[in-house]
Amino acid sequence: MTEDTRVQEMMDGMTARARDATRALARASGADKARALVAAAAEIRRMGPDILAANARDVDAARANGLSPAMIDRLRLDDDRVAAIATGVEAVAELSDPVGAVIDRAVRPNGLALERVRVPIGVIGIIYESRPNVTADAAALCLMAGNAAILRGGSEAVDSNRALHAAMVAGIARAGLPQDAVQLVGTTDRAAVGAMLGAQGGIDLIVPRGGKSLVARVQAEARVPVLAHLDGINHVFVHRSADPDMARAVVLDAKMRRTGICGAMETLLIDVEFPDAAALVEALAATGCEVRAEEVLRERLPNLPAADEADWDTEYLDAIASARIVAGMDEAIAHIARHGSHHTDAIVAADAEAAERFLAEVDSAIVLWNASTQFADGGEFGLGAEIGIATGRLHARGPVALEGLTTYKWVGRGTGQVRG
Amino acid sequence: MTEDTRVQEMMDGMTARARDATRALARASGADKARALVAAAAEIRRMGPDILAANARDVDAARANGLSPAMIDRLRLDDDRVAAIATGVEAVAELSDPVGAVIDRAVRPNGLALERVRVPIGVIGIIYESRPNVTADAAALCLMAGNAAILRGGSEAVDSNRALHAAMVAGIARAGLPQDAVQLVGTTDRAAVGAMLGAQGGIDLIVPRGGKSLVARVQAEARVPVLAHLDGINHVFVHRSADPDMARAVVLDAKMRRTGICGAMETLLIDVEFPDAAALVEALAATGCEVRAEEVLRERLPNLPAADEADWDTEYLDAIASARIVAGMDEAIAHIARHGSHHTDAIVAADAEAAERFLAEVDSAIVLWNASTQFADGGEFGLGAEIGIATGRLHARGPVALEGLTTYKWVGRGTGQVRG
Repeated sequence: MTEDTRVQEMMDGMTARARDATRALARASGADKARALVAAAAEIRRMGPDILAANARDVDAARANGLSPAMIDRLRLDDDRVAAIATGVEAVAELSDPVGAVIDRAVRPNGLALERVRVPIGVIGIIYESRPNVTADAAALCLMAGNAAILRGGSEAVDSNRALHAAMVAGIARAGLPQDAVQLVGTTDRAAVGAMLGAQGGIDLIVPRGGKSLVARVQAEARVPVLAHLDGINHVFVHRSADPDMARAVVLDAKMRRTGICGAMETLLIDVEFPDAAALVEALAATGCEVRAEEVLRERLPNLPAADEADWDTEYLDAIASARIVAGMDEAIAHIARHGSHHTDAIVAADAEAAERFLAEVDSAIVLWNASTQFADGGEFGLGAEIGIATGRLHARGPVALEGLTTYKWVGRGTGQVRG
Repeated sequence: MTEDTRVQEMMDGMTARARDATRALARASGADKARALVAAAAEIRRMGPDILAANARDVDAARANGLSPAMIDRLRLDDDRVAAIATGVEAVAELSDPVGAVIDRAVRPNGLALERVRVPIGVIGIIYESRPNVTADAAALCLMAGNAAILRGGSEAVDSNRALHAAMVAGIARAGLPQDAVQLVGTTDRAAVGAMLGAQGGIDLIVPRGGKSLVARVQAEARVPVLAHLDGINHVFVHRSADPDMARAVVLDAKMRRTGICGAMETLLIDVEFPDAAALVEALAATGCEVRAEEVLRERLPNLPAADEADWDTEYLDAIASARIVAGMDEAIAHIARHGSHHTDAIVAADAEAAERFLAEVDSAIVLWNASTQFADGGEFGLGAEIGIATGRLHARGPVALEGLTTYKWVGRGTGQVRG
C-alpha cells in the first residue's frame, strides 16, 4: 500500500465516522451541546499540565528546527493561554443554538404546512497552522452548531493539538455526545491536507485558518466548498462632505489600531473636493505609517513615497498604506471594484445620499459608513466567536459564526396531500 | 492561437462584461427589472416567426444527425411553445424582488447600526441541453434577482437559442438595462463549457439544467460553486401507524403521477408492523409499476421481481420502484442515510411523534409527512418559477428560486465609531 493510499483510507474512515456522528449531533439539543462544551473546558483545565508538557515538546522541536521567534510565540502555551482556551470554549457554550430555528413558514392552499428549519451543515474540515488554540476554538463552534469537525493543525503543533483534542473529546464523551464529533488528523503527512481538500461527499465545508499561502492552497485545490478570505484589501473613501475630524479618527483607526488584521485599511481614497486631504494624509503619516501616494497627492505632499500600480493590489498588513485622490464617487467605486478584495470598505461622508450610494454599489461583504474598517469582526458584530471571515459570494459572507455553520431543510406536514 | 486559448479569451471577455453589467443590475429596482422582462417577453412574441424559423433549422439538422424523436420533441418549438415562453418570462416579472430586503438588523452598544441586506450573487452561468425555453426561463430568473447570466445551451439548439437570446436582449436594452445582463455563448465548441466550469472569480455560481451526464460532468469538473442535484433517489416510508388509504394514495402519487421527474419516489419502505403491506404493494403494481421487492416482501408476494443491491441506489425515472420491509423507524432512517440522495423523502404515519423523528433525522433537502414526494417543486412551494433543485448542503437547498439566486452583504451605518 502506498503512503497516499494509506492516507486516503485514513481520511475515508474519518469522514465516515464523522458522518455517523452527525446523526447524534443533529438530534442533540442546545443544552446537550452546551453541556458537552462546558465539560470539554473543564477537561482542558484539568489536563492543563499534560497540555503544557506536550506543548513544551513542540516548542523544543520548533527551536531545534530553527523556527522564527514569531512562530514560536504563536505556538507557545502557558497557564494563562490554556485558561483562555477553556474560557473561550465556555463562551461558545453560552451562545444560543441556531439549530431548529424556523426561518420561515407558510401553509399552501392545499393545506400542506411548509417550514424552512435550520439544521447543521454536517461535516466541517478545519485546516490551520501553528496556533494550538484553534483546535479548541474551531471544534467548539462546529459542535455548538451541530457539526462534526475534522481538524488538521500544523505539524509544528502536533503534540499540543493531540493533548488539547484528547481533553476536548474526554469532555464531549463524558457529556454523552459521540467522540467522533471532533476528530484530529493524527498524521503530519502533508497528503492528509490533500485528502481533506478532495473529500467531496465526505466533508461538506472546509475552513482554512492561517496565513495567505495556506488559504491560497486550499482555495486552489479544494473540491469541497471553502469559506475563507484570501486578502483584506480594504478601502476608506473620504467623501467631499466628510467631517475632517471624523475622517482623521476613522482613517487612523482603520489603518493603525492593529495593522496586521484582515480588517485593516490598506488604501485611502480621498475625494478631490475634500478640503483637508493634505492634513489628513500628514496626520496618518505622523502616526508612523508609510503612505505611498499617487502623483496628484505627491504634488501636494512631495515628501511621500510614490505608489506604483502594484500598491493598489497589495495587502500590507503593516504600517503602510497606499493613498490617492479620486475625482469623486464614480472613481472611488470603480477603484474599489477593480482593486478591492470584497472584504470591508468604508466611506466617511456627511452627505447621506452619497453614503447610501456607496453602501449600495460597493460589492463587498461588509460596507460601512462613518465607521472604522477594523469593526470587521464577529464579536464586534454581536455574533460571538467567529470561525472566520468569508469574501466569497455564496452561503455566508463577512464574519462567519454559528449561523454560518448551519444550513436549512424544508419540512412539510400534510394530511395526505397528493398532486394528482 | 490555439482553439482553447481562443475560447478562453472569449470567456474572459464575457465574464468581464457580465461583471460590468452587475453594477447596473444591482442598482436596478424591482420595477426596472420587471419592465425589462415584460419588454423581453414582448420581443419574444414579436420575433416569434424568426424564432420558429431558427428552430426549424435546428430541427432539420437534428433529423439529419439522427437525433431521437424524444430529443427532437424537446428541441421543437411551435406557436404555443413560444407563447408559453413569453408568458413564463412575464410570470417571473410578477415575482417580488428579493434584492434590498433586510434579513436582520441590530444596533450595537457603540451605536453602529448593522443590517444584513439581500444583494444579487453576481454572475451566474447556466449550462443546459436541448430545451431552448431554458434560454428565456433561466435568464429571466437570473435577471429578476439582479444577476448577469452567461448561457450555454446545447449545440443542437444553437440557432433557436440565438434567436431567443436576441429577442430577450432587445427587450432588456429597450428597458434601459445593459445588454450584457444576458449573454449567450455563441460557439458550440465544447471547450466553452470547460472555460465556464473553470471561471473562478469570473462566474460566481453555475446551475446545470439537463440530464444526469451533464450534471455529473459539471459537478466533477467545476471550480466554481454549483447548485444542482444529481439524483432524486426518494423514499416513502410507510410507518406502522399509517392510515392504509392515505398510504396508498401518497405512494401511488409519489411514484406514478409522473415517473420521469426528480421528485418521484424510487424506493418504498414499509414498516414490518404495517398491516396492509401486501395490499399496498399490489395496488402499486396494479397501476403498471414494476415493483422490485426484497426477499421478506417476496415471501408474501412471490410474483414480484427480486430487487438486488443495486436497486436501492438506482433512480429509475420510470414506472419501476424498489420496495422492502424494514424493522421500524431505525432501519428506515438508516436505509435512507445509506442509499438516499438527500433530495426528498416522505413518511406516512398517524403517529406524530414518529413522524417528527423522521422529519428531524432524515438528512434531505425536503422531508415530508403525509404528502407526496412529487410536491418537490418551487411552484408547489409557493416560490414561483425555480432555477432547479439543489441537494448540496450550502447556500440553498431544495427548490432554488429567486431568493436562492441572491446573497447578502453587511451594511453598517455609524457616526464616526472607531475601535480605539
